Amino acid sequence: MRNIVLVIEYDGTNYHGWQIQKNAITIQEIITKAIEKITDESIDLIGSSRTDSGVHALYQVANFKTCTKIPTSKIPNALNSILPADIVIKDAFEADMNFHSRYSAKGKRYKYIIYNRKFGSPILRNYSWHIDKSLNVEKMMESLKYLEGTHDFSAFKASGSSVKDSIRTVRDISLVKNGFNIEFEIEADGFLYNMVRIIVGTLVEVGLGKISPTDIKKIIESKNRCMAGKTAPPQGLFLTKIYY
Amino acid sequence: MRNIVLVIEYDGTNYHGWQIQKNAITIQEIITKAIEKITDESIDLIGSSRTDSGVHALYQVANFKTCTKIPTSKIPNALNSILPADIVIKDAFEADMNFHSRYSAKGKRYKYIIYNRKFGSPILRNYSWHIDKSLNVEKMMESLKYLEGTHDFSAFKASGSSVKDSIRTVRDISLVKNGFNIEFEIEADGFLYNMVRIIVGTLVEVGLGKISPTDIKKIIESKNRCMAGKTAPPQGLFLTKIYY
Repeated sequence: MRNIVLVIEYDGTNYHGWQIQKNAITIQEIITKAIEKITDESIDLIGSSRTDSGVHALYQVANFKTCTKIPTSKIPNALNSILPADIVIKDAFEADMNFHSRYSAKGKRYKYIIYNRKFGSPILRNYSWHIDKSLNVEKMMESLKYLEGTHDFSAFKASGSSVKDSIRTVRDISLVKNGFNIEFEIEADGFLYNMVRIIVGTLVEVGLGKISPTDIKKIIESKNRCMAGKTAPPQGLFLTKIYY
Repeated sequence: MRNIVLVIEYDGTNYHGWQIQKNAITIQEIITKAIEKITDESIDLIGSSRTDSGVHALYQVANFKTCTKIPTSKIPNALNSILPADIVIKDAFEADMNFHSRYSAKGKRYKYIIYNRKFGSPILRNYSWHIDKSLNVEKMMESLKYLEGTHDFSAFKASGSSVKDSIRTVRDISLVKNGFNIEFEIEADGFLYNMVRIIVGTLVEVGLGKISPTDIKKIIESKNRCMAGKTAPPQGLFLTKIYY
């Protein structure tokens, strides 16, 4: 038995997210079927992050246990020859049997792209959040220092989420303007459900002048989801790294 | 009667090019129908460049004559509210009655993106040409000086093209490496049919070491299409500017 780890890149536009579900095509299902085809086994593919419908990944990690004799180095090409062009296996390696893509993760990194122009971008429409009103990028940058570090992020957690511990450590956070793009990046030991998208929605409220940078501190302290901004749409979000 | 000029951006992925044709959806048709809907007139939309199926535009120009009373400044929003998200009208202005999008053009600019990595990019699959073999970018750059200036570009003209004069002036040409992207830009007073894509196909031959930079000079002098490389695929090509 071997424990094979895959590094995956995908365009989430045409999928109902990562996790297998009935009556909808998901990334986990497509990759599982491809692995089952090349190994002729039933396998259980464990992803590090259950990305939502429309969310993309430049670096998703998933593992599965197998008896196959296919050399690990041949697995990416074997899978890519079956997979559609919007899902690519970039790398494969063998790990200890107790390695688990989700539980072994020590941190994650995400990128979120806002497209700030009067008219939306045809090319980036599935890869960004179009905001037509002018955003004050300096104010948005000023907000970041309140989010960095260890906090109870309950205010930035989807209301349906039942996770017990809402304390997370944001290790790195940045926001840069690049043409019409505003590119936000965040790295933490872990993320609550919809945390990145709620943070982005709240930063946009700052950019629009609806709240001030110091309000971010008050929102964190409130631990109240209703105080934060709306959840930014999925198509601007990219999973960019998993740390082990 | 007014002569209205539109500046248009589009993702060409889902269209059979610019020009109206039977049994296939084109960009000219979609925009024409939108204009006819808001003006309640039959109009003739003249595009500056008949982009091929799959080719994109960040700056296409088209004009039409109309009796409509809609103020020019209201036209972009009126059209964008009808158009699909992959076609955007960025600007509209009024021109002299003798302005013609194609015949009045004094120059054009294109960009071509090559994606050079072992595995293709899910996100950029419709916006680049994936080359999995390593390309020598320095040699490709060295080739550019032979293409700059005024030449008979017959060797870089699609064999079916019946245009009489094949002499064009390349006013600006550049190639830069940007991560996995190799971004090629070219500006000329005009282009022959498929000229940019044949130039890119030939530069890739240089990058692969199949021909040398000085061979570019010989290919131009040959005026023979068979001497140049293959036509690069459409999805890497972007029309980026029209000069008047």
